[in-house]
Amino acid sequence: MRKFTLFFTLLSILSLNLPAQSHHLMPVPRRVEWPAGQFRLDKQFTLTVSKSAPENLIAAADRFMRRLDGRTGLFLLQIESDFIRNDNLPKEANLDIQVERKGKLELGEDESYQLKVDADGITLTATTDFGAMHGLETLLQLLEVDADGYYFPAVQIEDEPRFPWRGLMIDVARHFEPMHVLKRNLDAMASVKLNVFHFHLTEDQGWRFESKKFPKLHEMGSDGLYYTQDEMRDLVAYAADRGIRVVPEFDVPGHSTALLVGYPELASAPGPYTIERKAGIMDPTLNPTIDATYDLLDTLFKEVTDIFPDVYFHIGGDENNGKQWDQNADIQAYMKANKIADNHALQTEFNRRILKTLTSYGKKMMGWDEILQPDLPKDAVIHSWRGKEALYAAAKDGYQAVLSNGYYIDLCKPTDHHYLNDPLPASMTADLTADQKARILGGEATMWGELVTPLTMDSRIWPRTAAIAERLWSPESVKDVDDMYRRLGVISLQLEELGLLHIASREMIMRKLCRGPHTEPLRVLLDVVEPLKGYERNPASKFYKMLSPMSLFADAAGPDAAGARIFRAQVQAYLANPTPENKAVIRAQLLAWRDNHAQLKPIIDRSPVLKEVEQLSANLALISGLSIAVMDEVRPYEDTMDAAFEAAKEQGGRTELMVVDAIQELIKE
Amino acid sequence: MRKFTLFFTLLSILSLNLPAQSHHLMPVPRRVEWPAGQFRLDKQFTLTVSKSAPENLIAAADRFMRRLDGRTGLFLLQIESDFIRNDNLPKEANLDIQVERKGKLELGEDESYQLKVDADGITLTATTDFGAMHGLETLLQLLEVDADGYYFPAVQIEDEPRFPWRGLMIDVARHFEPMHVLKRNLDAMASVKLNVFHFHLTEDQGWRFESKKFPKLHEMGSDGLYYTQDEMRDLVAYAADRGIRVVPEFDVPGHSTALLVGYPELASAPGPYTIERKAGIMDPTLNPTIDATYDLLDTLFKEVTDIFPDVYFHIGGDENNGKQWDQNADIQAYMKANKIADNHALQTEFNRRILKTLTSYGKKMMGWDEILQPDLPKDAVIHSWRGKEALYAAAKDGYQAVLSNGYYIDLCKPTDHHYLNDPLPASMTADLTADQKARILGGEATMWGELVTPLTMDSRIWPRTAAIAERLWSPESVKDVDDMYRRLGVISLQLEELGLLHIASREMIMRKLCRGPHTEPLRVLLDVVEPLKGYERNPASKFYKMLSPMSLFADAAGPDAAGARIFRAQVQAYLANPTPENKAVIRAQLLAWRDNHAQLKPIIDRSPVLKEVEQLSANLALISGLSIAVMDEVRPYEDTMDAAFEAAKEQGGRTELMVVDAIQELIKE
Repeated sequence: MRKFTLFFTLLSILSLNLPAQSHHLMPVPRRVEWPAGQFRLDKQFTLTVSKSAPENLIAAADRFMRRLDGRTGLFLLQIESDFIRNDNLPKEANLDIQVERKGKLELGEDESYQLKVDADGITLTATTDFGAMHGLETLLQLLEVDADGYYFPAVQIEDEPRFPWRGLMIDVARHFEPMHVLKRNLDAMASVKLNVFHFHLTEDQGWRFESKKFPKLHEMGSDGLYYTQDEMRDLVAYAADRGIRVVPEFDVPGHSTALLVGYPELASAPGPYTIERKAGIMDPTLNPTIDATYDLLDTLFKEVTDIFPDVYFHIGGDENNGKQWDQNADIQAYMKANKIADNHALQTEFNRRILKTLTSYGKKMMGWDEILQPDLPKDAVIHSWRGKEALYAAAKDGYQAVLSNGYYIDLCKPTDHHYLNDPLPASMTADLTADQKARILGGEATMWGELVTPLTMDSRIWPRTAAIAERLWSPESVKDVDDMYRRLGVISLQLEELGLLHIASREMIMRKLCRGPHTEPLRVLLDVVEPLKGYERNPASKFYKMLSPMSLFADAAGPDAAGARIFRAQVQAYLANPTPENKAVIRAQLLAWRDNHAQLKPIIDRSPVLKEVEQLSANLALISGLSIAVMDEVRPYEDTMDAAFEAAKEQGGRTELMVVDAIQELIKE
Repeated sequence: MRKFTLFFTLLSILSLNLPAQSHHLMPVPRRVEWPAGQFRLDKQFTLTVSKSAPENLIAAADRFMRRLDGRTGLFLLQIESDFIRNDNLPKEANLDIQVERKGKLELGEDESYQLKVDADGITLTATTDFGAMHGLETLLQLLEVDADGYYFPAVQIEDEPRFPWRGLMIDVARHFEPMHVLKRNLDAMASVKLNVFHFHLTEDQGWRFESKKFPKLHEMGSDGLYYTQDEMRDLVAYAADRGIRVVPEFDVPGHSTALLVGYPELASAPGPYTIERKAGIMDPTLNPTIDATYDLLDTLFKEVTDIFPDVYFHIGGDENNGKQWDQNADIQAYMKANKIADNHALQTEFNRRILKTLTSYGKKMMGWDEILQPDLPKDAVIHSWRGKEALYAAAKDGYQAVLSNGYYIDLCKPTDHHYLNDPLPASMTADLTADQKARILGGEATMWGELVTPLTMDSRIWPRTAAIAERLWSPESVKDVDDMYRRLGVISLQLEELGLLHIASREMIMRKLCRGPHTEPLRVLLDVVEPLKGYERNPASKFYKMLSPMSLFADAAGPDAAGARIFRAQVQAYLANPTPENKAVIRAQLLAWRDNHAQLKPIIDRSPVLKEVEQLSANLALISGLSIAVMDEVRPYEDTMDAAFEAAKEQGGRTELMVVDAIQELIKE
């Protein structure tokens, strides 16, 4: 360790800003140096792990070797006849993994590691197994190729996370996600060093937690789609083996329709209730003025805490619109009798009682912005969907806080939008003390479930979330968007090796939509469209309910249309520097788009499910053709063309073309 | 029902031989008539199910609607706000499903159905839910498209299976397959009307059954990769809901290394034993002369029968090489004392005791050919891997029998090989009585697990097994290979809608091998190669062990190289009819192959994992170039060219080119 420290002390502070290497590490480590040299890989490659290493690290080392084997096809001898186990570790090996102790799976545990590769071998040292596993992921990302085969480049890395809370929330309530889908996403999280899985288990649209004490919760609130307690325990163990904490969320007092299907007597308005099928903010709310509510929650939360050992317990607390409270005479009378001024105060009262329960079970309460009310104890954690002002206000007020505003990956915004969303930018936080800054624990990508199914889940989370993971792990100075996109392409392929379907699912949907393997014209179109962003794709649940089909054009479209992004950059380059070469690139692309509709039209004609995007495809062809004509000076730019460009901004199949402005910019001067 | 009977009585017997319709039903129904007309589909489309219908049929009807919705994008109103349930069925609907009773999940249950589509609506009638579910699958396959949208063509179908035992065996022991992989394969089985899942749970290479009585079985014999009893119960229920019986196999007395890891005292030779990692026939065998063996099996099989309700219980019984018995003095002494002539007789003695156990639990014994020894009771079922002679001999001997010889889908033979393998061809069975014929229950595709993982499993089973399903369901006269391949392409896409990865996994592997999304040159090569067939890919486990990487070139290659099959047909057409048009088709293909290597080479150069197929690709280019030169009369055919063609037959990456003979045939006259 001392050697490392000395080494890095000698490095200039500039090493934080990595040179434009051709490496594809993500997240970028805190400190990296690239001496000359390399360690060559062959089938004799071996690893060993220090004797004191916990079982889960040895299993992780075995997985590392198998991933390496699958990528290189070397048929590594060490793992051909057995799994790597405690009792078959070699004394010496090419990769030596040394850890001091088993990590405690809790906020702030040491996750640092040091990795050194040279021609003689590889050393990975870490205080805990968590750090060592991060190092193994880095090492896999380091694998390079040359004419002679595979090698690891010589490198010295000293790495640790910037923020201790680096999370992914998956809403399994709006749409149920089977365990194997969650597990492969946990694998993906581990590969980019995320360490908190926020398990959003309950909603108006579904209750996914098996309760032995209150079976009507899952029996009546889930359509039969829930997790057994054994399954959830298994998931917690699976996550723990990968250094990932699991924070369960039970959203109360709002978002509780599914709960009230089985227990309508706990509602603030008379039932019966049925599982909600629409998206949006719903009225049903628990009645905070009756003991029965707390009796159920007390007992239920005990069941929950028996399964989820993490000290944090998320109670949601968001988006209670108060309508049922306003209209309930008993509740109004209670408020009057107890001098409760308004609904905010009533919810604070509710939270206070919930907090008492959680505290008695040794848990710390976490909730969305709304829980921050006077009297909230300081060990509660504020989860901010509202924004950074709220975040810093909470920190100044003495609360720890986690940022999700800006990380709503369900809204299909491009990766750079999330990537540049720093939880603690120097520019905005000059007035925060060190203590206040330390209270900003990190962030969470939130995968809300209204428009996602097991088929599309991976493609909505990945690879974008790898960029958020980098934001939460790497120094603030790492923020080159082009370089992020370059590396993200490589990381995306590595994620696929874990069995994720973020690339394959699009192709599966395309084949279905095209009714055959010839999907290229559809791919060309998909490559420049994105699903409508924000809440525009499904305002007031007008277009989709929870049971609507979600394997159509918009579901194959991605939030980061690569073709559009590249074209926009090409247009900027051309406008800045209108060389014939730059023009030729653009003209070729426009020609391809102009002619694509004629390719796609016959497919649409024999596949009515694609009719919804016929106009979109025609629009792309039309504006591309116009632009070529003007560029070629076949005709001048005319204001009447504006109508075509305006029309091309219309949605089709709940997606939109992402190149309209760029094409117009080319010719409108 | 009477109406249907009358209708079909009027049909000529010729209707068994379907006209060359453009339909893509698979399996082809027993009787089909295509009157004029159609039923148009729109979002108002509804279905209802008779009041007496069992829950699983209502759930199946809901799944039918959702699959229809996903394929058409109609946003069907009936299912947008709820699942179809017993209490929300409409009185009248476009699709009326009438069943008489819940089927019993046992051999020979009524699986027939009648389906009638005309402009006014659709009627599906069946005796049991199993028949009705088959009818729903047929209806989904009937969906057609025209300029106005989706419709079902008018049709009258009277359908029932030719054989009552239509199975798929999956070996989950050589490689473990997670539950979700099995479930999606059960969905696929149901979609082509297969009705037996043969669950091969134990092997030398792994023990996958959780035993509460003998926990060392799964704890020491599985690397932690086993099914809990709850999971197996869940799988049985999932299969039952789809009309699929589950027959468990516990292979004894051979194939038992994994069992002996935990219980070496039951072996016929001293231990200790470790889980086998190679493929092949192994020596370890249970000791049939000690009571301890039967004590364990008695208790274990009781546990098994508690989980698997099917009356059939498969004991394997194959490939005991007898070596351990020959070398064990105690066993030899026992044989002498008990006048047991040889190892066959000893195994018969073993089977007799096992049979007694199974009989006491109400089970019928099933086993591979080897169990057929004198004294085997007549209610045992012979599972034939040896061939039809053995099959018919068993039937003549009074045994029921199931054919798997010819259905070994792990051997990567082409689909037509399996398709034309009739269990009971008229030509071979003239001497069998009706009773004897009736004892041939059907067949099973066997997916042995030596070379398959969760990633590639689907691609090794599908779509080929759909053709086997047709062989076992449809009349013997349905055997047009070209038409089978035409329909198989459509069915393959429909299987993908169920979430199967048989197409996607190849693309996932290709992206990994090419280290990027540009995989087209590799696809061109893959399209004309097949994995080495039979046991040639891995003789004596020389190339692969169970833990070897199996996501490489051969794993992306398929057993039915479409490009090769099409080219071979084109060559035959050209040789029979050497028109300029036929020649042009072939020449274009040869040119593409000749030039492909130059495209693939740079990819191989930056991806060493592909080096193993560089020569294969070069060979294809070379012989294609030679053939063009000769066809173009640039040079004459010379005998020296033979060497190039011979060399092109060499394997590469454990695959072989499937077009060498056809290319040579073109020019060698």
